Amino acid sequence: MVHQKQDSIGTSMDKLRRKLYTVIFEAETPAGRAFDVVLLILIFVSVLTVVLESVVSLRRNFYDQFIFIEWVFTILFTIEYLLRIYSSPRPVKYIFSFFGLVDLLAILPTYMSIFILGSQYFLVVRALRLLRVARILKLTTFIDEGQVLSNALRASFHKIVVFMGTVLTLVVIVGSVMYVIEGAASGFTSIPTSIYWAIVTITTVGYGDISPATPVGQFLASFLMITGYGIIAVPTGIVTVELSQADRRRITTRVCPNCQKEGHALDANYCSNCGFPLNKSPEAAIQS
Amino acid sequence: MVHQKQDSIGTSMDKLRRKLYTVIFEAETPAGRAFDVVLLILIFVSVLTVVLESVVSLRRNFYDQFIFIEWVFTILFTIEYLLRIYSSPRPVKYIFSFFGLVDLLAILPTYMSIFILGSQYFLVVRALRLLRVARILKLTTFIDEGQVLSNALRASFHKIVVFMGTVLTLVVIVGSVMYVIEGAASGFTSIPTSIYWAIVTITTVGYGDISPATPVGQFLASFLMITGYGIIAVPTGIVTVELSQADRRRITTRVCPNCQKEGHALDANYCSNCGFPLNKSPEAAIQS
Amino acid sequence: MVHQKQDSIGTSMDKLRRKLYTVIFEAETPAGRAFDVVLLILIFVSVLTVVLESVVSLRRNFYDQFIFIEWVFTILFTIEYLLRIYSSPRPVKYIFSFFGLVDLLAILPTYMSIFILGSQYFLVVRALRLLRVARILKLTTFIDEGQVLSNALRASFHKIVVFMGTVLTLVVIVGSVMYVIEGAASGFTSIPTSIYWAIVTITTVGYGDISPATPVGQFLASFLMITGYGIIAVPTGIVTVELSQADRRRITTRVCPNCQKEGHALDANYCSNCGFPLNKSPEAAIQS
Amino acid sequence: MVHQKQDSIGTSMDKLRRKLYTVIFEAETPAGRAFDVVLLILIFVSVLTVVLESVVSLRRNFYDQFIFIEWVFTILFTIEYLLRIYSSPRPVKYIFSFFGLVDLLAILPTYMSIFILGSQYFLVVRALRLLRVARILKLTTFIDEGQVLSNALRASFHKIVVFMGTVLTLVVIVGSVMYVIEGAASGFTSIPTSIYWAIVTITTVGYGDISPATPVGQFLASFLMITGYGIIAVPTGIVTVELSQADRRRITTRVCPNCQKEGHALDANYCSNCGFPLNKSPEAAIQS
Repeated sequence: MVHQKQDSIGTSMDKLRRKLYTVIFEAETPAGRAFDVVLLILIFVSVLTVVLESVVSLRRNFYDQFIFIEWVFTILFTIEYLLRIYSSPRPVKYIFSFFGLVDLLAILPTYMSIFILGSQYFLVVRALRLLRVARILKLTTFIDEGQVLSNALRASFHKIVVFMGTVLTLVVIVGSVMYVIEGAASGFTSIPTSIYWAIVTITTVGYGDISPATPVGQFLASFLMITGYGIIAVPTGIVTVELSQADRRRITTRVCPNCQKEGHALDANYCSNCGFPLNKSPEAAIQS
Repeated sequence: MVHQKQDSIGTSMDKLRRKLYTVIFEAETPAGRAFDVVLLILIFVSVLTVVLESVVSLRRNFYDQFIFIEWVFTILFTIEYLLRIYSSPRPVKYIFSFFGLVDLLAILPTYMSIFILGSQYFLVVRALRLLRVARILKLTTFIDEGQVLSNALRASFHKIVVFMGTVLTLVVIVGSVMYVIEGAASGFTSIPTSIYWAIVTITTVGYGDISPATPVGQFLASFLMITGYGIIAVPTGIVTVELSQADRRRITTRVCPNCQKEGHALDANYCSNCGFPLNKSPEAAIQS
Repeated sequence: MVHQKQDSIGTSMDKLRRKLYTVIFEAETPAGRAFDVVLLILIFVSVLTVVLESVVSLRRNFYDQFIFIEWVFTILFTIEYLLRIYSSPRPVKYIFSFFGLVDLLAILPTYMSIFILGSQYFLVVRALRLLRVARILKLTTFIDEGQVLSNALRASFHKIVVFMGTVLTLVVIVGSVMYVIEGAASGFTSIPTSIYWAIVTITTVGYGDISPATPVGQFLASFLMITGYGIIAVPTGIVTVELSQADRRRITTRVCPNCQKEGHALDANYCSNCGFPLNKSPEAAIQS
Repeated sequence: MVHQKQDSIGTSMDKLRRKLYTVIFEAETPAGRAFDVVLLILIFVSVLTVVLESVVSLRRNFYDQFIFIEWVFTILFTIEYLLRIYSSPRPVKYIFSFFGLVDLLAILPTYMSIFILGSQYFLVVRALRLLRVARILKLTTFIDEGQVLSNALRASFHKIVVFMGTVLTLVVIVGSVMYVIEGAASGFTSIPTSIYWAIVTITTVGYGDISPATPVGQFLASFLMITGYGIIAVPTGIVTVELSQADRRRITTRVCPNCQKEGHALDANYCSNCGFPLNKSPEAAIQS
């Protein structure tokens, strides 16, 4: 109701804010879509700049150019940030939201680099700009697919917790035992390091920076590898079953208005059970 | 019947034991649930202590603190162990059960460290305390999910045995052949070592501590890798199909009103066990 | 119509061209099939020559033989290329098509090696000859299977894009953070290198040329490994569901006798497109 | 008919041969089962001996014992081999069958080691004895499960060929390109070696004995890794779908004799569609 009141007051100021809101926060209008595309390109180029700046030879040769580009991006993102605060109906809520904080982190490091000198590492925070892409994608056609995926993952959350708990228990116990069997000579210098090795092994990554040298250690490692190789089947099975159900659910939402049979394909015109036209309204069904 | 008699005698001693049993072994009451949560935290912190104690720099600096913390945990777990024996209806059966032995192993090493000096490795046994977590989880909502997973694994046990047998045969034969082809120069010093390498390879772990150097060896290794890469599909397929069936079974929990058989398909009209019409009401079932 | 006119003119020249076209571009006739088999063998042997030529010891000992074999293949493929241009109904379109360019790349390097001396690397382009195999397989019985696979991949394209986007974002952010945590000492010399390491880790390849040395880095690496180990389930689930649907669709090839729509479910009584009873005979359909 | 004639002749010699055949080649009788179990143990112990003999320290200390044990096994397997030839209805066919040759290879090396001295490698052939286990398992309850697995793999053979062909083409082309990009300095000494590296990478094994050092090479390697990580989904999906169908087929073979509805569970007593008892004969169905 408060919202409608604001509408009826309708100063030109408010109109501007509301137009800005549609452009910046939404993607249904051509202007909003164009804004999103430009922002997407800016984010990618700015992250690419951060990535390339970390290469020593490039930083040495193009130091001034990097500084210049960085400030251009920072100023552009600052303007965008201020406009977001201005046009947002609840600015405080926006500022302290996840994306609000990410937006702030995207510009803060450059400003702070004026005061705090010498720390190139500090500037890496800017790579978090990539997280901003998530917001833009939320407004596109990919939302549906992302929804299906995240629903499937959420539905299998309990099973995955049980699975992960088992894996972590196994990793801690095998790690502890390997610490005793192999000892510091083979690189198993402490239990945390041994657990790190066990994770490297069970996930089949296998760096080889630490690897067992004694026959008993190699035997236990073999057991862990085969376990890791075999149980990858479990999360895969879980997610597949969930995705398969999500898929089935999406198909089987149409009900025949005449015989109530469910599960008609999205392109079906007639009920496959009683032959009634699916596109007629239920009222027509009753009249006929 | 013996149990009921004990109930009717009902000394205050027995009441205490039964109350303790409910708190310690069960999780339905608020007290039982609180006990589980506290125990869970104690176990995690105590295992974390064991893990951190193994780091040389930490052990050197906080040696006394570690000893102190360890004794606190040991005494707490000892009290818990004694209470479990006391409140258990069949103490001997508990002591020699899997969890009874794990509970004993959780406290024994610290006591033994008084008599047997100098062996830090010995204390690693305490990491087995993590196994105690399994009991607590057995009493929570995760039991259902764990059930589904372990049922699926049990149902596909025969298929997995055949699969594992094939993998192990392959690994022994390829390991033996590689021992001949590569020899000690590339690290294939014996057939057990070669088998270890073959397991590292077929599970796609690939440490690189041992790797083929001759063209023939690299060719055979390539064959083994592609095999390992391809046949991971088999256990995954097996588990997925089993999970999918477990899931389907859980969905179709229609119960026959006549014979109470569960698990009828959603489009079934009659009970597949007794032939009773599934769509009739239970009252009709009684009348007929 | 233009095509039919050409047919009726029917000079012996045209007849030759059309016969050549059937032999070279198609595989239905015995001659066409024989041509494909010969070409397949030639391609494999010529690629094998390129591969073996790169081995230093072989190149040194059999230099003249390699040169000779290479020219034989080049002349054969040149004749084939010219015949393809000659017999093709639209030569220009063929020359600039994907396979036309691959055919040209298959012969060009050998001719250019006369003018540009000393570059053995240049000749590697000839390995692209292997791509020509794809055309031949397009004409065989494998087309169906390839179709099912590529359809399944295309249907899950959107989901895979969302998945890959998430993986790449994760890899860039974790790579940047690891660059800060580990630094150049452990091999994380720049963010691109760190991203390369993150990809090596999340895909569970794990070369070990770069690996974390600090506890914090190993912890983050463990997180990345477990993530990579777990989320492999997602693309697998997606593709399995799509393949399963493609399969189901292929099975239910019931055709409506009235409107010829395919793909009705096995328990359908009426066509989902036109409402015609599926179980009636086609004659009844005509009579009604 | 010839077989029945032999039966009627029935000399005591023939009776012995037939009894031996039942014991040695079959597993239905208690004697046959006992023979299989003993043979299984002998094979495992003899392969274990071969494996342990290859360990230098063990061979040095227990040389005489190994020789002795080896001759015991060889003599036992020789007796078994001769009995198999004797009792087999068609001895020549058995000798040249796959298992006949494996049986011969299991004993030949030990005899040949008398004449050909000094080659320990030669004796490794005895590890092939493990293949003999396959025959025994063929006679057990695992045959069903193995059947399901191999059927599923056979049904998806065409799809797997297309998949493997794509992978191998990719591996040859990427291997060739990496040979040009990286060169001998990073270990890419020839195209075969580069292809070996590409297989190590795409299968996510990742030894790290060869790994790219240039940015372009690392980029291409990253592409290959992500491809390998993603396309593992394809064989998994294929096998899962086939296994799922094999499973469904096994369940849905019972037809109701009254209403002909298919797909009743193996433990169903009544048709789920019409309520008719499933175990009655079709004649009874007609009479009722």
